[in-house]
Amino acid sequence: MARKMGSFRHSLLERRERLLSTTKGYSEIVFPNIQEDLNESTRNWCSYRFFSDKIVGLGKQVQDFAYRGYQMGKSDPRKIVFSAKLGLALMLISLLIFLKEPIKELSQHFVWAILTVVVVFEFSIGATFSKGLNRGIGTLSAGGLALAMAELSHLAGAWEEAVIILSIFSVGFCATYAKLYPSMKPYEYGFRVFLLTYCFIMVSGYRTGEFIHTAISRFLLIALGAGVGLAVNILIYPIWAGEDLHALVAKNFTRVATSLEGCVNEYLNCTEYERIPSKILTYQASDDPLYSDYRAAVESTSQEDALMGFAIWEPPHGPYRSFNYPWKNYVKVSGALRHCAFMVMALHGCILSEIQAPAERRQVFHHELKRVGAEGARVLLELGNKVKRMEKLGPVDILYEVHEAAEELQNKVDRKSYLLVNAESWEIGNREKELGEPQDLLTFDDDENNKVLEYKSRSEAVLDLRSMTMPKSWDRHVPQHGHQAHLPSKYFL
Amino acid sequence: MARKMGSFRHSLLERRERLLSTTKGYSEIVFPNIQEDLNESTRNWCSYRFFSDKIVGLGKQVQDFAYRGYQMGKSDPRKIVFSAKLGLALMLISLLIFLKEPIKELSQHFVWAILTVVVVFEFSIGATFSKGLNRGIGTLSAGGLALAMAELSHLAGAWEEAVIILSIFSVGFCATYAKLYPSMKPYEYGFRVFLLTYCFIMVSGYRTGEFIHTAISRFLLIALGAGVGLAVNILIYPIWAGEDLHALVAKNFTRVATSLEGCVNEYLNCTEYERIPSKILTYQASDDPLYSDYRAAVESTSQEDALMGFAIWEPPHGPYRSFNYPWKNYVKVSGALRHCAFMVMALHGCILSEIQAPAERRQVFHHELKRVGAEGARVLLELGNKVKRMEKLGPVDILYEVHEAAEELQNKVDRKSYLLVNAESWEIGNREKELGEPQDLLTFDDDENNKVLEYKSRSEAVLDLRSMTMPKSWDRHVPQHGHQAHLPSKYFL
Repeated sequence: MARKMGSFRHSLLERRERLLSTTKGYSEIVFPNIQEDLNESTRNWCSYRFFSDKIVGLGKQVQDFAYRGYQMGKSDPRKIVFSAKLGLALMLISLLIFLKEPIKELSQHFVWAILTVVVVFEFSIGATFSKGLNRGIGTLSAGGLALAMAELSHLAGAWEEAVIILSIFSVGFCATYAKLYPSMKPYEYGFRVFLLTYCFIMVSGYRTGEFIHTAISRFLLIALGAGVGLAVNILIYPIWAGEDLHALVAKNFTRVATSLEGCVNEYLNCTEYERIPSKILTYQASDDPLYSDYRAAVESTSQEDALMGFAIWEPPHGPYRSFNYPWKNYVKVSGALRHCAFMVMALHGCILSEIQAPAERRQVFHHELKRVGAEGARVLLELGNKVKRMEKLGPVDILYEVHEAAEELQNKVDRKSYLLVNAESWEIGNREKELGEPQDLLTFDDDENNKVLEYKSRSEAVLDLRSMTMPKSWDRHVPQHGHQAHLPSKYFL
Repeated sequence: MARKMGSFRHSLLERRERLLSTTKGYSEIVFPNIQEDLNESTRNWCSYRFFSDKIVGLGKQVQDFAYRGYQMGKSDPRKIVFSAKLGLALMLISLLIFLKEPIKELSQHFVWAILTVVVVFEFSIGATFSKGLNRGIGTLSAGGLALAMAELSHLAGAWEEAVIILSIFSVGFCATYAKLYPSMKPYEYGFRVFLLTYCFIMVSGYRTGEFIHTAISRFLLIALGAGVGLAVNILIYPIWAGEDLHALVAKNFTRVATSLEGCVNEYLNCTEYERIPSKILTYQASDDPLYSDYRAAVESTSQEDALMGFAIWEPPHGPYRSFNYPWKNYVKVSGALRHCAFMVMALHGCILSEIQAPAERRQVFHHELKRVGAEGARVLLELGNKVKRMEKLGPVDILYEVHEAAEELQNKVDRKSYLLVNAESWEIGNREKELGEPQDLLTFDDDENNKVLEYKSRSEAVLDLRSMTMPKSWDRHVPQHGHQAHLPSKYFL
């Protein structure tokens, strides 16, 4: 309500200002929108400017689109190469079809060659092989089955048509049902091709009576399309799924390391979100760099699985021979890294959470926390580099420094844990009381405070006292203030 | 080495036993494998039994396969219905082609109708619409462009063929490059159809000189296929992606709740993994129920996104009207739930980690921890039920109980935090010492211990003392033992 009133007053002020500052007429101030709308619509339909504006706008959109396309090509030139390769393959197959015109029978079915190129031509070699294999096996098995069924249907005599229709139904049912089985998912495309080929040969064969001819010419043209597609895709600048997987895993290490160090630094700098982006709360993609880095590492599971599924189809290539083509191990390494990403996620949760440790407490552990963060990030970066350069770990224990840093932090926590506990409520006796400093944390002056705290636990409530000042000699003395925030270290670390 | 020796001795013992217990000859004991292999291969190639065994084995495999198929159908009968629907659609389209034989011209291109049914017929209505739309737009725009280009190429006269080939290259390049743009991913199939149609019409039109005829007959047959496919898929037992999404989100709540309560209980029961399954460490699917439940909730991102992408295409249906078809909100809710799953993941990490809190310390907080876990799980289950039944939350604050439980735990932690800190290393003075109980945690008797601890921090090392006994009156007294484990609460909670 208060906000509404505020915005209302604000708009009133704005209007008065406009009244004073402009020399326009009364109506324009009271009904500025209507006036503008009228002006707009008059302009829209009557003047030349409208069209020129539209054209300029369209031109800008096209320019923008072209610019983004240019940016994409600049950041990954392989995409340009790949597009050109596909264009080349299509051009080649069209040329072959044009030249082959004498063999009329074969070129009647030329659509299969084009279809095969369009469908089989995938970005990476592995994906191309996997799809090609699916297509090949689907076509061959469907062709065999269709020929057998055609012979059987001939025996049925007058019932031939009924047998064909029924066989189409039952093959359609069985192939679709098998396709839905989870472990059959990689072969989904093969099942589709199987169905299509079977129906095509049965129907086409029945119409022309030439089952075998249909099957063979179709197979030849698919082989032609697959041959051209594979040759162009493999021989000219091949793009390997295995290399993509390798680069992705190495990049994930860098991402998690950046996120880790970023989280620790932001925590120590007491960065606070004024309002947590709802995209982060609902785990959607966001442009917060801390968040997007670790989210990308967590979210790459499906991409890695897909790349691995393709990489295992690829022929020997590149420097991977000495490691025996470690695609599965890359995925495992990335899975282990994902656990680190979950930890970073938990750290980020400390920055995101409503309950925050006071800045002064963070400063006490500043040096140690920073060192642990930096050393952890260093280890991750080092591992990422090793993965990237395909090197083995040296004789130096790369965990040494991070263990040292962790131990240093642990010692500091041990020495300073009185900052993190609520010693005056200990059952074994109140240390502070014994020292003559009663602390009465939970006496609030007014009802309003209690209302706010209705659903907060005591320790949560206590943490609201962020503005308190610290005694200068904090490190060496027992707390002097009555309102010190005592929080268990789970909120702090 | 020790293990190798052990297994060697074990196998020796085994052999002696076999020598004593069997009456077979010497050679069979010294070379048991060779003998068995020889027997096996003799049997394999000479006897009838080999083939019968193989056939029985094959029969068993078929039986097993059929059984698993039966199980799949039993758990989700929609899969059976869907398969039958596809079979029916294929049967109908074949029938139509058979009947239409008089219109020879049209039925020459019947393959497009079959192709469309096979490709467009997807499990859910939304996916079917989305693919159908892609196919329709791809075909229409490619048809338009191809007709325009055909007219242009006619103008080129002698260079017609070259213009066609070049246009195929440039269209192939542009369409593929646009397809690779990330935001174009949902339309990937449309681009493929576009390319295929364009090439087909250009090549086929050039061969027959009938560009328009090819384009129209092709479009009519695609419309026929799409019509039959859509009619069968929508009119007979429609399967909605939106309903799947709804069920998935509701199920994820149950999964996370089960996992949460399971983690807390296992923690309190001090369940330890003898050896952590490497699948968990590398974040792969595993059959550990705790792990698989929360992993499924985390991993369902891509599935949810796919289902939402389909659901927004679906026509109004079911009880979702009153909620204005909340597909996007379902995904958001599930994203928020994912944060709970990450917390459960962190809890599970406590059970998985090498450093474990001693059982006795866990028992101190047993009641409170159990209550927090149970109440948290109850809230999640309740929310899941509300989502499932599409009800709004009642006037009762469902967070009340879990807040109460958390506060109870917090109070307990406040009262007992002396169990969690290393008070004798406090810089402000050693409480225990003042009470006359020196604790010398870090004097180890032998070198071996120190070696083990080389890379462990002090507090980590202290936690190895799990076998210690607790004083019976633990709750009310200052610890009496010298070797109590003092750990910051981050290890404990």
